[in-house]
Amino acid sequence: MGKALVIGAGGVASVAVQKMAQNDDVFTEVMVASRTESKCQDIVARCQNTKTKLSTAQVDADDTAAVVALIKAFDPDIVVNLALPYQDLSIMDACVETKTHYLDTANYEHPDTAKFEYKWQWAYMDKFKEAGITGILGSGFDPGVTSVFAAYALKHEFDEINTIDILDCNGGDHGYPFATNFNPEINIREVSANGRYWENGEWIETEPMAIKREYNFDEVGKKDMYLLYHEELESLAKNIPGLRRIRFFMTFGESYLTHLKCLENVGMTSIEPINFQGQEIIPLQFLQAVLPDPSSLGERTVGKTNIGCIFRGKKDGKDKTYYLYNVCDHQEAYKEVGSQAVSYTTGVPAMIGAMLVLKGLWERPGVYTVDEFDPDPFMDGLNEWGLPWRQDFSPELVD
Amino acid sequence: MGKALVIGAGGVASVAVQKMAQNDDVFTEVMVASRTESKCQDIVARCQNTKTKLSTAQVDADDTAAVVALIKAFDPDIVVNLALPYQDLSIMDACVETKTHYLDTANYEHPDTAKFEYKWQWAYMDKFKEAGITGILGSGFDPGVTSVFAAYALKHEFDEINTIDILDCNGGDHGYPFATNFNPEINIREVSANGRYWENGEWIETEPMAIKREYNFDEVGKKDMYLLYHEELESLAKNIPGLRRIRFFMTFGESYLTHLKCLENVGMTSIEPINFQGQEIIPLQFLQAVLPDPSSLGERTVGKTNIGCIFRGKKDGKDKTYYLYNVCDHQEAYKEVGSQAVSYTTGVPAMIGAMLVLKGLWERPGVYTVDEFDPDPFMDGLNEWGLPWRQDFSPELVD
Repeated sequence: MGKALVIGAGGVASVAVQKMAQNDDVFTEVMVASRTESKCQDIVARCQNTKTKLSTAQVDADDTAAVVALIKAFDPDIVVNLALPYQDLSIMDACVETKTHYLDTANYEHPDTAKFEYKWQWAYMDKFKEAGITGILGSGFDPGVTSVFAAYALKHEFDEINTIDILDCNGGDHGYPFATNFNPEINIREVSANGRYWENGEWIETEPMAIKREYNFDEVGKKDMYLLYHEELESLAKNIPGLRRIRFFMTFGESYLTHLKCLENVGMTSIEPINFQGQEIIPLQFLQAVLPDPSSLGERTVGKTNIGCIFRGKKDGKDKTYYLYNVCDHQEAYKEVGSQAVSYTTGVPAMIGAMLVLKGLWERPGVYTVDEFDPDPFMDGLNEWGLPWRQDFSPELVD
Repeated sequence: MGKALVIGAGGVASVAVQKMAQNDDVFTEVMVASRTESKCQDIVARCQNTKTKLSTAQVDADDTAAVVALIKAFDPDIVVNLALPYQDLSIMDACVETKTHYLDTANYEHPDTAKFEYKWQWAYMDKFKEAGITGILGSGFDPGVTSVFAAYALKHEFDEINTIDILDCNGGDHGYPFATNFNPEINIREVSANGRYWENGEWIETEPMAIKREYNFDEVGKKDMYLLYHEELESLAKNIPGLRRIRFFMTFGESYLTHLKCLENVGMTSIEPINFQGQEIIPLQFLQAVLPDPSSLGERTVGKTNIGCIFRGKKDGKDKTYYLYNVCDHQEAYKEVGSQAVSYTTGVPAMIGAMLVLKGLWERPGVYTVDEFDPDPFMDGLNEWGLPWRQDFSPELVD
């Protein structure tokens, strides 16, 4: 049916490409490109028993001209951007120039400010319309599936949604006292940034980690979770009519937070170099060298993720509560694609979004978040491709 | 009156030498010797308005022949060993060879085993007797003052002492989330070693930090303290007749322990080198480079230490309880001698012990711990030289 150019070769790209190769009626040709071509080749080597024609390329995603040249050479129907969030704009520019559909899983972040905002990408609306191409923003799990859940709830279960609580629980255990899936600096930013949620038309800021709740997650159990800002709050606050409040909560274990705090306290997470035996060394880089290699975690991580949305609103004049969520097992994901659930829950929705564009079901010139399309084929895709959803009509609520 | 050779130039030596210079009727001549002579010169420069004749020398305390040569050249009446515990035996050998009195503040520890035992030094009994010289073992605060307290209590307050609890509280605050006064490796050994106490003639081992109590210390307040093994338990269990139980407790803050544990968990306290950017680096050494310089802590440490012994026993046929302790203020110590209370409480008793030898009050051929001498002149010395003691006849007890 169509050709996809995947840019990026990390855990999420690995899952998305393997899922495309499973879905070979839709993805007839896939090229994987990244700065390090050997990583692309490793991904392709994982794809067995597929009719999809797979290839690889080397590309610097920061270099729009290089991306344009690659697009012209491969001539894909869609570019699936699974590179770094810093690189969204340079890749979008290449899509405009070559009139190629675009999809990503995380919104643009300026390297220096670490402030998630859609405004940089929403500014491409007219350019995409003029080029006649579709830009899908944030087609991972959160953002992504959580926004599709909101569109689905509004379409089928509510006349009006008044509050949304997005709950992101990772109940995985890698057996180390402390390790990070990715750069600890990003972890530290996350827990040291102010919290933010939207209520009655206004953004309300809180101290970092100031709002804490305990929640009993299906198939995971009781976990502490903390209110954070997350990018889908911006698009859903704008797009869901009648919404009065939307919040986002993420689970963090007490031990994880204690270790992170202690390491920060003693200066081990600093990015200011210190002089050690005549050499300038950045403490954070030394810490990463001491910690377990993130790529070694997948194999040993057990447990499940549980991510979803609790909606409250009105249906046929009555109050209604509704919880939509997915449970994903780290070890099952690892067995299927060699990556644990954190990559799996992001890579599968990227494939589904790209599939809907290729099938013409989610084609609309401009740039849009996933809540702005018909949720039904996406919801079917989740059930078909490994992230089945569950619903609960009387869930525990978050106060 | 006499000449002292002080070996060592750390914080304790700095306090002891300054106190000797204050006590210039007794200490007519003092030489300070260490591996780094400039550190000795810094100590001498702190001593103003004194009749004591001060000098410095370079010496390797591991090298008995070098210490013998220095003793022969300077001809001291006593060698005051404030070097590393690893060096006790090489210095004792030099004292035997030159027939010079000896005093230290910490018992011999083998570099590889970190096991505090008196047997290595008690083995010098006959050699010291034959040489006609006095060897005073452990004349710091603990061991040292705590043992003198026991001898004093037995002489004046009890017919029989049945239990002793030694309580060592450091209520100092340097204002950092985490810092160590010395090598963090030694701190880690301390908290990860098994606890041990003596009861009814037997040593009882516990898991590390397994016995925890809260105690309300005079002038400090409530602190958590943990049962540890400490070297004076061995000599007091042997020397105090009628003793049924002796224990030692040291305070550690929860935050201090948490930081230490986290750093251990992530591997930052390991002494196994890791490869970092092509170079072998020991994580513990890198950690020390990141932590505040221990020498910078004295100036900013506020608060007090409170160290003492709670005795229970019989007097005139009745049960009796008695608490002897000293409170020392970090900032007052720093103002007087440029070192905080941890060094002050060790350096002052070293000077007092040496003074009693020079005065002939504690002269007895052989090697002895300080509880084996008349405690009265030592107790007077504490009041005169900056560590006044207090007594409480109805103290809070430790269960």
